[in-house]
Amino acid sequence: MKIAILGSGFIARFYAESLAAQRRRDVITMICARDAQKVKAFAAQYRVPYTATDLNEAVAHPEVDVVVVALPNDLHLEAVLACAKAGKPVLCTKPLGRNAAEALQMLQAVEKAGIVGGYLEDLCYTPKFLKSLASVKRGAIGEVLWAKSRETHPGPHSAWFWSKEKAGGGCMIDLGCHCVEISRNFIGKEVLPVEVMCWADTRVHPIDAEDNAIGLVKYANGAIGQFEVSWSFRGGMDLRDEVMGTEGTIWLNNFLRTGFELFTTGKGGDYIAEKAESNRGWLFPVGDEVHELGYSHMFTDMFEAIDQGKQPAETFYDGYIVNAILDAAYASAASKQWEPVKIEGWRGAKNDIQKRTYPSYDENYYLIKEEMLPSGEKKLIVKHKQTGSIEKREPAASGTQGE
Amino acid sequence: MKIAILGSGFIARFYAESLAAQRRRDVITMICARDAQKVKAFAAQYRVPYTATDLNEAVAHPEVDVVVVALPNDLHLEAVLACAKAGKPVLCTKPLGRNAAEALQMLQAVEKAGIVGGYLEDLCYTPKFLKSLASVKRGAIGEVLWAKSRETHPGPHSAWFWSKEKAGGGCMIDLGCHCVEISRNFIGKEVLPVEVMCWADTRVHPIDAEDNAIGLVKYANGAIGQFEVSWSFRGGMDLRDEVMGTEGTIWLNNFLRTGFELFTTGKGGDYIAEKAESNRGWLFPVGDEVHELGYSHMFTDMFEAIDQGKQPAETFYDGYIVNAILDAAYASAASKQWEPVKIEGWRGAKNDIQKRTYPSYDENYYLIKEEMLPSGEKKLIVKHKQTGSIEKREPAASGTQGE
Amino acid sequence: MKIAILGSGFIARFYAESLAAQRRRDVITMICARDAQKVKAFAAQYRVPYTATDLNEAVAHPEVDVVVVALPNDLHLEAVLACAKAGKPVLCTKPLGRNAAEALQMLQAVEKAGIVGGYLEDLCYTPKFLKSLASVKRGAIGEVLWAKSRETHPGPHSAWFWSKEKAGGGCMIDLGCHCVEISRNFIGKEVLPVEVMCWADTRVHPIDAEDNAIGLVKYANGAIGQFEVSWSFRGGMDLRDEVMGTEGTIWLNNFLRTGFELFTTGKGGDYIAEKAESNRGWLFPVGDEVHELGYSHMFTDMFEAIDQGKQPAETFYDGYIVNAILDAAYASAASKQWEPVKIEGWRGAKNDIQKRTYPSYDENYYLIKEEMLPSGEKKLIVKHKQTGSIEKREPAASGTQGE
Amino acid sequence: MKIAILGSGFIARFYAESLAAQRRRDVITMICARDAQKVKAFAAQYRVPYTATDLNEAVAHPEVDVVVVALPNDLHLEAVLACAKAGKPVLCTKPLGRNAAEALQMLQAVEKAGIVGGYLEDLCYTPKFLKSLASVKRGAIGEVLWAKSRETHPGPHSAWFWSKEKAGGGCMIDLGCHCVEISRNFIGKEVLPVEVMCWADTRVHPIDAEDNAIGLVKYANGAIGQFEVSWSFRGGMDLRDEVMGTEGTIWLNNFLRTGFELFTTGKGGDYIAEKAESNRGWLFPVGDEVHELGYSHMFTDMFEAIDQGKQPAETFYDGYIVNAILDAAYASAASKQWEPVKIEGWRGAKNDIQKRTYPSYDENYYLIKEEMLPSGEKKLIVKHKQTGSIEKREPAASGTQGE
Repeated sequence: MKIAILGSGFIARFYAESLAAQRRRDVITMICARDAQKVKAFAAQYRVPYTATDLNEAVAHPEVDVVVVALPNDLHLEAVLACAKAGKPVLCTKPLGRNAAEALQMLQAVEKAGIVGGYLEDLCYTPKFLKSLASVKRGAIGEVLWAKSRETHPGPHSAWFWSKEKAGGGCMIDLGCHCVEISRNFIGKEVLPVEVMCWADTRVHPIDAEDNAIGLVKYANGAIGQFEVSWSFRGGMDLRDEVMGTEGTIWLNNFLRTGFELFTTGKGGDYIAEKAESNRGWLFPVGDEVHELGYSHMFTDMFEAIDQGKQPAETFYDGYIVNAILDAAYASAASKQWEPVKIEGWRGAKNDIQKRTYPSYDENYYLIKEEMLPSGEKKLIVKHKQTGSIEKREPAASGTQGE
Repeated sequence: MKIAILGSGFIARFYAESLAAQRRRDVITMICARDAQKVKAFAAQYRVPYTATDLNEAVAHPEVDVVVVALPNDLHLEAVLACAKAGKPVLCTKPLGRNAAEALQMLQAVEKAGIVGGYLEDLCYTPKFLKSLASVKRGAIGEVLWAKSRETHPGPHSAWFWSKEKAGGGCMIDLGCHCVEISRNFIGKEVLPVEVMCWADTRVHPIDAEDNAIGLVKYANGAIGQFEVSWSFRGGMDLRDEVMGTEGTIWLNNFLRTGFELFTTGKGGDYIAEKAESNRGWLFPVGDEVHELGYSHMFTDMFEAIDQGKQPAETFYDGYIVNAILDAAYASAASKQWEPVKIEGWRGAKNDIQKRTYPSYDENYYLIKEEMLPSGEKKLIVKHKQTGSIEKREPAASGTQGE
Repeated sequence: MKIAILGSGFIARFYAESLAAQRRRDVITMICARDAQKVKAFAAQYRVPYTATDLNEAVAHPEVDVVVVALPNDLHLEAVLACAKAGKPVLCTKPLGRNAAEALQMLQAVEKAGIVGGYLEDLCYTPKFLKSLASVKRGAIGEVLWAKSRETHPGPHSAWFWSKEKAGGGCMIDLGCHCVEISRNFIGKEVLPVEVMCWADTRVHPIDAEDNAIGLVKYANGAIGQFEVSWSFRGGMDLRDEVMGTEGTIWLNNFLRTGFELFTTGKGGDYIAEKAESNRGWLFPVGDEVHELGYSHMFTDMFEAIDQGKQPAETFYDGYIVNAILDAAYASAASKQWEPVKIEGWRGAKNDIQKRTYPSYDENYYLIKEEMLPSGEKKLIVKHKQTGSIEKREPAASGTQGE
Repeated sequence: MKIAILGSGFIARFYAESLAAQRRRDVITMICARDAQKVKAFAAQYRVPYTATDLNEAVAHPEVDVVVVALPNDLHLEAVLACAKAGKPVLCTKPLGRNAAEALQMLQAVEKAGIVGGYLEDLCYTPKFLKSLASVKRGAIGEVLWAKSRETHPGPHSAWFWSKEKAGGGCMIDLGCHCVEISRNFIGKEVLPVEVMCWADTRVHPIDAEDNAIGLVKYANGAIGQFEVSWSFRGGMDLRDEVMGTEGTIWLNNFLRTGFELFTTGKGGDYIAEKAESNRGWLFPVGDEVHELGYSHMFTDMFEAIDQGKQPAETFYDGYIVNAILDAAYASAASKQWEPVKIEGWRGAKNDIQKRTYPSYDENYYLIKEEMLPSGEKKLIVKHKQTGSIEKREPAASGTQGE
């Protein structure tokens, strides 16, 4: 597999690190960005044989089999259209579009061209995520009721992120796209996202877009997907997922508390931990960022999919759904009420909401709760099916009220 | 100080444990509940000299100086009115009322009677909370932007909680009252809570009230107080607070991960950890529940306040504000939009919202972000004050775009 | 109870905080230290009515019922003898003596005088310790095989600690006395400590005594008590216990990771967390140090014991055993071999070491291990009772070797 | 690179998983084990084209470039000698030998044959270890004083481990070899390990070898390497490293607490977490075991080394040093005193122990400690260079004694 990378910024370097890792048989053959000087430096660092400053030229190059789009959000559409035109599989960084309309164009373009459109949602490929998702699918936590994902840090590194025009929004489009897709995976991709309630505000930075946001996404089966995002968090990068099911709980922490703790007075050397806000005191690095943040598994899945002529786990369709949910979130932040998720061409389940059935205690009662008393005996709280009256059943059954 | 306890259930026993702890000079002289048998058992266990099954009789007893109300929510008002009539200080468990109207009656009654009305919000007295609140007030994390509190467990122990009529609601009134007051303390009690957006649903239990809810409370200064509550959480009792400020972060965990970890095969004995869902596997107890959940500091504050003729940290007025916020939350869950918090007699700041001022980089630019490069040099992202254009300032300042 | 405190330094203030907490009925009536100015300041701060600079005068004062010794190690013996002479119960800070000979004198003095001699080993009274010890005694982790306790920090606050003459040693006598008694409680106070192997070295500070030490204490039942102590640890105060039993595990963390996490840029204010090495970055305070480090429960136990004419949980006899074990540790550090623990008047079990019996698989085999295969079937590893041959029993039982 | 694997058991499968991961360009071309049926199954699962049941045949096969030895300890020597004879690079699992004599034969054989002898010490290649080791080398924690490594679990999976003859010992040779090499890396491979003190005992299982052991390894520069190993730990697999330096601290947790927490009632499905002792309650899996336990980075280093004609980070020489240290540990467990580490052909530094120099406070005094008082002023503890007298320097400098 011969790879072209479009873009030479932060994320391009991250991708290159990942592609270069562990003696892969995939190689980067092309690097393309507008700034010729940066392209040159990148090519030297990662030993890339061909370079370009023109996107169409890069995509069309005969030594390019697949294209990785690592450009600012406002350039995704143009790049994807070029790939569709050239008939080359395209892997696009997140978010897919600045909004659902852009994402839909990209989705339609790759499907019409008959090429793979891979959505580079790395956080849906972290080892912890993959293993916990498999557990959820095997039923380890029962039915998922609530799936929260949180990503907060002190703000992005490149200037274009801070431009609402170029990015399509602020921290919500930048970080919320991760969170939305993580929750959606846990709840089930076949379940329709129905409506969104969102708060978003610009609290700290002198920008037009939001730098803090919280949203609730309601799914057809009643489950709630929640996102919490911020560009003003202090203390490093907080990346956590929490899932509540009827039979269990999952807590994932991808940064800050992963079993790697380092204290330094700062006197010993010039050590600077990445993403830390300081180079002294207690620091919480991640062992192998590329791998633990999902990049290795993501690219393996993408390339295997292309090789085998099938779809990867995260596709342009998923990217489109995420954009549609975020569109609803922005609408809700403005209207201050729940806003419907507008999806064209939903491919999941019909999602007639099913009424939940409750466990019966006996013919006349539902069981609300069963509790073990210190004595080892069970205490039950039941509800009469007809009257709705709530009663308790204790071992020695003497009814009382004053508690 | 001679104390009467009204109620003999779970929380009454918890209070009694707390009052009895550490050779206190305060003693319980009266126990009153409707069930004579339970009263008798309670009196024997805690060596209480006087008993009653009639509330007014208990309150009026000459050996009673102060009354602790540990009754179901629907009986708070009656008990408080009895105390007001008798002119005896009253400490009432949370929530104060089933709604703001009830709470307001109680507030007005104690203020008219000139007695102390203490609001027994134990989680605003945990050692961790008190110490972190003091840090926040000293400015350790700058301006508070967001204060979240979460309380989830598999559901309450007594039957009355599950009755919407008796409790005034479900997990939101039961657990949300804690969370709301915790967030409000961190944000500042003088700051007006303006409006609430809330999702609430009955997902697991066969009850009329909500068993899961999430809410956002917007304050006049722009801060957000968030609550997450559930009666269907699996894995024990999850009690966590998270606070984000402009200059720092606070994470408190009051249960499940407090530095006490125990694994048992279950073969060794009959050990049952409280609030755990199991008596084998990894268990996470709390060392001294009474103390660490705030009961000791709470009663000390209450009794000191009564002795010294001043107000405790948590008063009926606070309980009323909490009820007003929760009323707005219930309204929002029904209307699906932000609902105003309706407060009669606001005693805080006027809270004209102030426009935030941003740090200038120079005469023409705001500073968005300053980042340390691996080289040790600083990279800056700035915004033009007039044009809004976002630009970067790098050490060797060669402008690029393609990242 | 009217209390005298001898000493006005760091630990005396800690004790005073603890005694003053939570409206106790016990009061401090006397403060005595050599420095009149310090005595005066202490008396003012804690409202102590009587003061003295002479120890015998303080002990003999009619308004003193019990004496708390909070003096440097080299003054314990003199103070205890004064109390014995005056016939007043005495509570002595840790370690009891600078060595077993001093401790034995103190033990004999209080026993001859017929007074309570309480050993103020606060870390054997922390809420986590008390609850986990109760679990161990109920059999939750089976037979204890190994009990480790670790206390490390950057070094003590007062000058006398650093003098080998005044303290009786370095970090081993200062911190190891805690660890030894914690392990001994978990293993069982009735079990004879037989011998000790210890490494101790002066690695960092310009002192004569050791600033780092690790020791193993072997008990008659085969259990190992381990201590790790240091005065050169960086990052705060590390206080952890780990216990391994045949049926379970206990991990206690009393500092640094107790569910209280605070990040501050340091710009927001002048907050300084106690025991932290810095006032910025990630800090890990403890909620209520006095309570969580055991002081509250310790004094309650001590005063209850005196009131009721019985022995507290930690007595001078325990302090003597600890000193005897530490004497063996110092001997081992010098001789570089295991050294016997020399105890005069052992009051525990005879401790004939019992041979362990192993679970049989059947008539001819012992069971070594039972493992669940992914298929759900069990794989067994067994050992022939006579030949000692180790074999496996697999579901479909095809013997193999090459693994 | 065409790879042969010798052995088809647990570790062979683990290696195969690792080699197959992430589209590597290295392929497994040969599998060899004594049991033809197992060989067949392995070849089918990992698509290995050639098989053998004879070791020499496998090694000599023309489609084999490098040999990975994944056999029981007693077969390492034979396999390595075969590789040396065939002149093929050999990568051998840990421990290298059952003792230093065996290891030395292997070392001499590969060096004489001029082939790479890679020591497959995976835990010295975990991402956390590699990153923290790099920090240590950059001086982030100053001089390393103590490096502890702990590996404990409920016992190994295959029968041969439990045979002292086949394994060369018990948990100490099995797990201690990891710990010794981890500590040695942190302290510095160039520093001579001088002597060892060790306790080892058979406490739980009906075996001849030890099932629990603790050891201290003293290095020429005064640093201590400590290992704690057990085959009777309950609760999963405990893999932790702790390093104390003069300017900092490192805590690594490779299992049980890595930011992946899952609670399941067990009702939801048949999920079984690996290495967990149960399939219900709180479970703590690792995200990607192969990667996080170091296998990926280990093989990459090994193959790169072979390709580039240089030595990998862990060589047979390292394996020999580890065996020599463990030999001393077994000797010490028997003799009950410190035993010298006997190394033939030490290649590190001469290691004349250097006397530590202490920071001076002024011409006459050493500085022992500097402490920040709550007032913000500094308190100093100093020691007179000649008299050894320890004194304090306080801001307002009034000398006192009674603390």
